[in-house]
Amino acid sequence: MENVFEKFEKVKYEGPDSNNPLAFKYYNPEEEIAGKTMEDHLKFSVAYWHTFSATGDDPFGAGTRVYPWAEISDPVERAKAKAEGAFTFMEKLGAPYFCFHDRDIAPEGSTVKESYANLDAVVEVIEEKMSETGIKLLWGTANMFTHPRFMNGAATSPNADIFAFAAAQVKKAMEITQKLGGENYVFWGGREGYETLLNTNMALEQDNLARFLEMAVDYKEKIGFKGQLLIEPKPKEPTKHQYDFDVANVVAFLRKYNLDKHFKVNIEANHATLAGHTFEHELHYARINDMLGSVDANQGDLLLGWDTDQFPTNIYVTTLAMYEILKNDGLGSGGLNFDAKVRRPSFEMKDLLHGHIAGMDTFAKGLKIASKMLADNYFEDFIDERYSSYKEGIGAKIVKQEIGFDGLADYALEMGSIKNSSGRQEVLEAKLNQYILNN
Amino acid sequence: MENVFEKFEKVKYEGPDSNNPLAFKYYNPEEEIAGKTMEDHLKFSVAYWHTFSATGDDPFGAGTRVYPWAEISDPVERAKAKAEGAFTFMEKLGAPYFCFHDRDIAPEGSTVKESYANLDAVVEVIEEKMSETGIKLLWGTANMFTHPRFMNGAATSPNADIFAFAAAQVKKAMEITQKLGGENYVFWGGREGYETLLNTNMALEQDNLARFLEMAVDYKEKIGFKGQLLIEPKPKEPTKHQYDFDVANVVAFLRKYNLDKHFKVNIEANHATLAGHTFEHELHYARINDMLGSVDANQGDLLLGWDTDQFPTNIYVTTLAMYEILKNDGLGSGGLNFDAKVRRPSFEMKDLLHGHIAGMDTFAKGLKIASKMLADNYFEDFIDERYSSYKEGIGAKIVKQEIGFDGLADYALEMGSIKNSSGRQEVLEAKLNQYILNN
Amino acid sequence: MENVFEKFEKVKYEGPDSNNPLAFKYYNPEEEIAGKTMEDHLKFSVAYWHTFSATGDDPFGAGTRVYPWAEISDPVERAKAKAEGAFTFMEKLGAPYFCFHDRDIAPEGSTVKESYANLDAVVEVIEEKMSETGIKLLWGTANMFTHPRFMNGAATSPNADIFAFAAAQVKKAMEITQKLGGENYVFWGGREGYETLLNTNMALEQDNLARFLEMAVDYKEKIGFKGQLLIEPKPKEPTKHQYDFDVANVVAFLRKYNLDKHFKVNIEANHATLAGHTFEHELHYARINDMLGSVDANQGDLLLGWDTDQFPTNIYVTTLAMYEILKNDGLGSGGLNFDAKVRRPSFEMKDLLHGHIAGMDTFAKGLKIASKMLADNYFEDFIDERYSSYKEGIGAKIVKQEIGFDGLADYALEMGSIKNSSGRQEVLEAKLNQYILNN
Amino acid sequence: MENVFEKFEKVKYEGPDSNNPLAFKYYNPEEEIAGKTMEDHLKFSVAYWHTFSATGDDPFGAGTRVYPWAEISDPVERAKAKAEGAFTFMEKLGAPYFCFHDRDIAPEGSTVKESYANLDAVVEVIEEKMSETGIKLLWGTANMFTHPRFMNGAATSPNADIFAFAAAQVKKAMEITQKLGGENYVFWGGREGYETLLNTNMALEQDNLARFLEMAVDYKEKIGFKGQLLIEPKPKEPTKHQYDFDVANVVAFLRKYNLDKHFKVNIEANHATLAGHTFEHELHYARINDMLGSVDANQGDLLLGWDTDQFPTNIYVTTLAMYEILKNDGLGSGGLNFDAKVRRPSFEMKDLLHGHIAGMDTFAKGLKIASKMLADNYFEDFIDERYSSYKEGIGAKIVKQEIGFDGLADYALEMGSIKNSSGRQEVLEAKLNQYILNN
Repeated sequence: MENVFEKFEKVKYEGPDSNNPLAFKYYNPEEEIAGKTMEDHLKFSVAYWHTFSATGDDPFGAGTRVYPWAEISDPVERAKAKAEGAFTFMEKLGAPYFCFHDRDIAPEGSTVKESYANLDAVVEVIEEKMSETGIKLLWGTANMFTHPRFMNGAATSPNADIFAFAAAQVKKAMEITQKLGGENYVFWGGREGYETLLNTNMALEQDNLARFLEMAVDYKEKIGFKGQLLIEPKPKEPTKHQYDFDVANVVAFLRKYNLDKHFKVNIEANHATLAGHTFEHELHYARINDMLGSVDANQGDLLLGWDTDQFPTNIYVTTLAMYEILKNDGLGSGGLNFDAKVRRPSFEMKDLLHGHIAGMDTFAKGLKIASKMLADNYFEDFIDERYSSYKEGIGAKIVKQEIGFDGLADYALEMGSIKNSSGRQEVLEAKLNQYILNN
Repeated sequence: MENVFEKFEKVKYEGPDSNNPLAFKYYNPEEEIAGKTMEDHLKFSVAYWHTFSATGDDPFGAGTRVYPWAEISDPVERAKAKAEGAFTFMEKLGAPYFCFHDRDIAPEGSTVKESYANLDAVVEVIEEKMSETGIKLLWGTANMFTHPRFMNGAATSPNADIFAFAAAQVKKAMEITQKLGGENYVFWGGREGYETLLNTNMALEQDNLARFLEMAVDYKEKIGFKGQLLIEPKPKEPTKHQYDFDVANVVAFLRKYNLDKHFKVNIEANHATLAGHTFEHELHYARINDMLGSVDANQGDLLLGWDTDQFPTNIYVTTLAMYEILKNDGLGSGGLNFDAKVRRPSFEMKDLLHGHIAGMDTFAKGLKIASKMLADNYFEDFIDERYSSYKEGIGAKIVKQEIGFDGLADYALEMGSIKNSSGRQEVLEAKLNQYILNN
Repeated sequence: MENVFEKFEKVKYEGPDSNNPLAFKYYNPEEEIAGKTMEDHLKFSVAYWHTFSATGDDPFGAGTRVYPWAEISDPVERAKAKAEGAFTFMEKLGAPYFCFHDRDIAPEGSTVKESYANLDAVVEVIEEKMSETGIKLLWGTANMFTHPRFMNGAATSPNADIFAFAAAQVKKAMEITQKLGGENYVFWGGREGYETLLNTNMALEQDNLARFLEMAVDYKEKIGFKGQLLIEPKPKEPTKHQYDFDVANVVAFLRKYNLDKHFKVNIEANHATLAGHTFEHELHYARINDMLGSVDANQGDLLLGWDTDQFPTNIYVTTLAMYEILKNDGLGSGGLNFDAKVRRPSFEMKDLLHGHIAGMDTFAKGLKIASKMLADNYFEDFIDERYSSYKEGIGAKIVKQEIGFDGLADYALEMGSIKNSSGRQEVLEAKLNQYILNN
Repeated sequence: MENVFEKFEKVKYEGPDSNNPLAFKYYNPEEEIAGKTMEDHLKFSVAYWHTFSATGDDPFGAGTRVYPWAEISDPVERAKAKAEGAFTFMEKLGAPYFCFHDRDIAPEGSTVKESYANLDAVVEVIEEKMSETGIKLLWGTANMFTHPRFMNGAATSPNADIFAFAAAQVKKAMEITQKLGGENYVFWGGREGYETLLNTNMALEQDNLARFLEMAVDYKEKIGFKGQLLIEPKPKEPTKHQYDFDVANVVAFLRKYNLDKHFKVNIEANHATLAGHTFEHELHYARINDMLGSVDANQGDLLLGWDTDQFPTNIYVTTLAMYEILKNDGLGSGGLNFDAKVRRPSFEMKDLLHGHIAGMDTFAKGLKIASKMLADNYFEDFIDERYSSYKEGIGAKIVKQEIGFDGLADYALEMGSIKNSSGRQEVLEAKLNQYILNN
């Protein structure tokens, strides 16, 4: 195999005016923003599946992208060569992190035992490459949606054998995540939902999902894994309805089973919009519920109804996302994972770099703008003033819960005319434009 | 005022083949279904706002419908005449229940005191009419979204005076609901949400909303109101984002503030679909979370993105809804309230009857079909069989939580090939059609 | 290869109360409806791609369905065995027609010449099977969206070589369609659109598409193909935007290039709803523009934003579709092609029968209901009355174009009050329910 | 009446860093861009309805904004005072144009005659104010959707009297548009569509719409009105389905009736997205069909399903729109009309200025960026290169129509492997960001 990524130059920061499509214009990893380097703020991660496994196929077309390791016939050898290529790519790109599903890094065997062995063989190579390059594992996960056995779910399958199979798979995926120093472990329930209620026992399925997650919590403790457990909401696709519809649906579920202390959420921009929310809404909601764990950094096309997983190039989206993340004081063990794929006609290997550069630049610029916004406190001052009536008088009594309907009705009966203040949305949007266009 | 409704004949059941647009074809109130009369199963309610207040105006057009009481100039006298008309209409229709917002039944005064007095004056008439006709109050609520003061919310307003005003309003609305024997009290937070996050303190707003609801719980206890408190989810409209987005969002919120014991949900079909869910999904989810309280019976147009509030005429929707309701053993104190309006060009008074008849017939037929489905147990048997692996062996251990990842992995390592069974969606949909078309 | 379809019983009509999932409940091919047999009215067709090629894979999962011929390694021999299986299936089902893309019936070779030869080899088998079984070809088409070469379109590719390749492909596909007695030839431009305007010359692409279609018209004439040419609209997916967005977009295009005499449209239910229209709207619009050619009979899930291609089981949809088709006096050379796939968890071979039976029954029942509606003329009478003002007086002058703004203004200046009549939507929807539930 | 707008300072250009919410940051009317002033490029227009008539009411709430002239009880005097206020506002803002519906500027009378007289009375005032201020009329139109009489349409009403009434209304609206030097006349068919096909004769309605437009063409010629006639597409709302669904639907209609020479389109951003298109798609499609007439400059919220008519503050949208407009060599007699309203909680008079300033700044900046993009020709060069195969060889033969399927098949049979080139979407999006962020 020719490792074609070797031929690439390491991607360098050349500044905003660079015409080089293979250079950063805004992402300057060493640059300090509010006391931390850009690299530390952003913790960019490459998604093994989109960037080293997917070929650009879609429901109406075959793959357009051919990886150099595709020619290797032995699946485990191919997986090792893929790992070599992947780390070369990540080094050239300058990505500090990566993420994977078990099936991305090693082929499934014909038995559980063989699958475990395949993982062990490839994990050895990955461990070595991590050590060589310093690239770290943001999170691991188990793919429990591709194989036909999971057609009706994994932890929510109507078939107990499949629940068992999934347990065996997550057990191993947690172990290798731990072994590779993974900072988080993610659950995305791609098939944990239903196609039709006519054949579904939703109550049992949700109870089983809770049982599965409890086992994961127990096993994490047993093996001493220190990473954060994360659930990734998505409303639909591939199933008609997924239980982890949005952040609030996940939170409702976790609170029901007293699991909320053990999990946070991994929020994906495209999943947010498919659920009818803005990305910043989901981040904000998770933040004020102390559930914001990590981010899948991509964007959808709001005129399309499926998960397009585009590289994030909308500066409004990245600015408002970084604003939430900065207000959360960062993502803790989380980071920004590019769950993003180049468009199908962008089939060349270097397009994989183009996509990541576009995403990293847009988030870097978003970080700079958001940091300036926070430093100025313009929006926060506006909000403080807007809600100032809750700081004293009747408002303070409400907040302190020193008054009830009777007291408030007495107050209202004596109250003069109420004076509202304008929400000033147009001024605020214009100000946001100034931050974006002038910084 | 001429009470034009007096001229109508009482709507009678004439059977499926009737050509009389002013007769029931399927709703036969006395008919017994599974041991209860249709009337008791369905508990139909007329919505005061759509049927006696709204005129058919929309964002691009003025009202098309002129009520006979419109000519009365004194607002309280007009409200009393409206009540007279309303009860005549409901009697002619044969609706056993009605629902209202405070502002539907009596005009807002220039002070809280005056508004209270207006309510008292009209409530007296309503009480009398209820006693005369036997028509009951399904639920009351307070309109805290129409008046400009609520432009930024009521319990979630940035202005503490408005919170106080809202409290005074709910206090009174609960009192009159109690006085009229209302079986439930509903909260729909039409403006409890935001237009833009740029000017919003979501954390404070949600805390305040919880404080408001706690006060309502306290006040309910204080006055000894026995009705069920209900929250009605809606994702958006009028605001860009509403906190009570869907049932799960409401549940997450209630659980956070330990309010879930005190509230159930009032589910509207059109709100469900605006949130990206089927109506039956929301009913089912509420049911298995023991939160199903009452129903706003209407339907939306899934190709339109706003709340069209159409009378429910889709037999699939009503059948699957009644199936959930029967499995819930009914709605308890809840019922089926027609939060539905005739189309704007259906501007004649008798169109109000047409709409209700269409809705009542479609739900009555849905009840009959759903009852047959449950009696046969066809779908439930299929589901039982489908999940039978959880009744013994490894599945039973999972359900009883007698096993963890280690044990399951051991099992999986020894497991032979897994056999999935078909989901049979096409067979089930065809069977549903047989139930609908042959009953 | 074991031809598993041989084991199936021929699907028989057993009537509405049958509990046999492998029998027809409503489709009785010999039954006469309004002077024609059901079979002649409906002209059902099996789609080769969904029923004999697709395996149930989706963007997140591998195939779940294994065809008996999958084990044959030689691609042309496999294609022949597939043809054998296909015709057995269609005979058992009792489908009078089928449809195919070139690549469904024979594998692509490594050169155009080889691809032609592969087609010739398999077409021979198909011809023989058609003759044996009496099953006919509704339409053929060329797949110009799956292969990576078409990543940017076929006739609208930026690469002239691909335009040439596509021409060679359509030429052959038209020839084999003619050879097999195909009654129509379809163009679906799955990649004829764009991903981003930033890299697109839309004017050239549309001109080239017109040039391509003109060549097709010329070639049809040259070879004396008598079938109808059809264009199938779809708004998006796989591309972000497709030029044949909906029927009106197609019509606008055809009229621009004077191609409208040569083409009609093949309307798919799921494509209609993805474009924001009801299925019946698209049928109606095509009908009154004399463009209704054929139908892809399926249904979408209106809460999902992609082409779910479900078997049509909604009786409203099939009733209203058949109503339009009956008013069009049938589809001429067109028919009802099941561009529909069983759900991924319906992975057994007999589920393929289940899906078709569900679809055929729902359309058969829809036909019966629609035929009754037309016989009664209830809806048409209502419409005639509603527009009767255009039959005389000022209305007749308008229709005959005997009056202009001046004359109409003079009339309006003298006019008394205008009397509107109610649209009666609720009555009409209730009546439609009676037709559906009582027939 | 106190003309509160008098108190405002004239809005001045203060440059990108200004903190003054009542100053322009990017719109500098005198600044030259590519040989024309910004003012001439942009031709901004204030919409009389949103800015001087609408009060912020929505389907769930009453108006929040009180205009100073609201206190005047005589409707014609109020309309005159409104005109005074409007021109003061527009002068302070520095808007060179305005647009109106007949009912915005003068109240409807109880007869056609009285309505004409009301218009004449107010038009006199407007004419005077136009002469005083130099503010011009971009276009006039007739409101044929608000009054109940138009509940089922105007030109497509089932009632011929209403067709006549509409004709009388358009006649007068064209006359006053001409009198005031209006540069265009617009048709927006807010109710020209249907609520349900069950009661609709679409063929007659579309024929009647064509007859109506032909009368308008005749009348335009008769009175010698030199302005451009425009149709404004919108897919739905207020009706369930509108005939002028999108630009292509309008074009298909116009071509059918040979009206396409007489009309162009007025494209609204929010209407484009409601139809499932980007704004730039509709502009581009109109441009290459020589139908681009004018623009309604606003934006929608893509997560909401109704016409939110927000002031345009998204720099991507305005940049790509201005790019299309510059490539169209401007809009001819058209301009940028703010069919936009401030959010309901922005209820103060100065919020009306804030909204317009935000919109004007965002379009001005978009103009500057788009102009730079065109000057550099970066995107156009990429496109030229991408399609270069059509300039010679087989491609040139295709374009010149010198070859057909036979010739192309011969070519394909001999062709070697085809080489595609990457679409480079990620590079192009990143470059667009550089244009936006660095200029």
